[in-house]
Amino acid sequence: MPQHITTLTVQTSGKALVEITREVADWVASTGAQTALLTLFCRHTSASLLINENAAPAVKRDILRWLDRLAPENAGYEHDDEGPDDMPAHLRSALTGSSLSIPVADGRMVLGTWQGIYLAEHRAHPHRRQIVAHLLADN
Amino acid sequence: MPQHITTLTVQTSGKALVEITREVADWVASTGAQTALLTLFCRHTSASLLINENAAPAVKRDILRWLDRLAPENAGYEHDDEGPDDMPAHLRSALTGSSLSIPVADGRMVLGTWQGIYLAEHRAHPHRRQIVAHLLADN
Amino acid sequence: MPQHITTLTVQTSGKALVEITREVADWVASTGAQTALLTLFCRHTSASLLINENAAPAVKRDILRWLDRLAPENAGYEHDDEGPDDMPAHLRSALTGSSLSIPVADGRMVLGTWQGIYLAEHRAHPHRRQIVAHLLADN
Repeated sequence: MPQHITTLTVQTSGKALVEITREVADWVASTGAQTALLTLFCRHTSASLLINENAAPAVKRDILRWLDRLAPENAGYEHDDEGPDDMPAHLRSALTGSSLSIPVADGRMVLGTWQGIYLAEHRAHPHRRQIVAHLLADN
Repeated sequence: MPQHITTLTVQTSGKALVEITREVADWVASTGAQTALLTLFCRHTSASLLINENAAPAVKRDILRWLDRLAPENAGYEHDDEGPDDMPAHLRSALTGSSLSIPVADGRMVLGTWQGIYLAEHRAHPHRRQIVAHLLADN
Repeated sequence: MPQHITTLTVQTSGKALVEITREVADWVASTGAQTALLTLFCRHTSASLLINENAAPAVKRDILRWLDRLAPENAGYEHDDEGPDDMPAHLRSALTGSSLSIPVADGRMVLGTWQGIYLAEHRAHPHRRQIVAHLLADN
């Protein structure tokens, strides 16, 4: 059974949800796989992956504000080597997670109509982020 | 290596944790797979999947109340096109996640004694929810 | 396509993040797999799996304190059969998750430089925890 693997690089410009659905879909299509299991893995502890609504931009802003409240800056963290956004970034990554598993059918990810895949950048400054994409496929 | 894939449909009746362990187990058994990797994927951004205690009904109620506190209604969200339960539903989905990966051994999911699989419905009104089940199996 | 499966047992000594990266890496290496998909699954509802920073011990302590705030003890839970740490443990498990999916390339998990794999023990007393490790591999 063929395996396909690649690393997607995403340049961020500070705290944001960066949609990567298109890049992932293009790579899946390039393999020619029809039925498959896609795994996405974020190689960082201050960025993470999530699936959410891809239609209304306000949803992304509300998610970011909610993360700001749930894992706030300046909450008396013991670890603050890299500044006030350091420890909140680790917490937000733990909350949203490092990996996603998405089945592929008829050559396409089985995402629902309103689902988009996002890289969540939790640091204030720009970073180059690496996401490993792995596909177990029928061809 | 054979792949099996199906869509499980769950009718919800508003906010609740709906146990789907039996439906998933029955489908896994129907494939005849002995050793396998099961992936469950929820095709919605206002419903999600989680594993939790399946013995005490009070646990489900406590989880729902905790989600109500962690991602409350009427918290000044910018996105409220579909009512006060709209944005909280997206946040609760982000919190609990869209996919689950469960190994199968000796023909059964390796769930612990007290683990059940739940579809979490985060909207106030009933919905028909789709969960894609994918199995990479030895036969 | 070969599948490898094993159960890793972790003895905990109360609330903590127990790093298991080495044990997992050793098992992956023992299979001889070069390109593969690793799934880790925690068979409990009061312990969970997460990936986070493995360099600064203060990060682990900050994560535990944050979980204490986000899912506190004595918050008026209906379910408290096993003591004040019972329901918070279920909530913290729901928050961090039961499974992880990690691609393997060139014989090694594709973890980033600072990523470690942790079993999060959420109960106050020691427990023996079981993590099922499953590998879909090229050999």
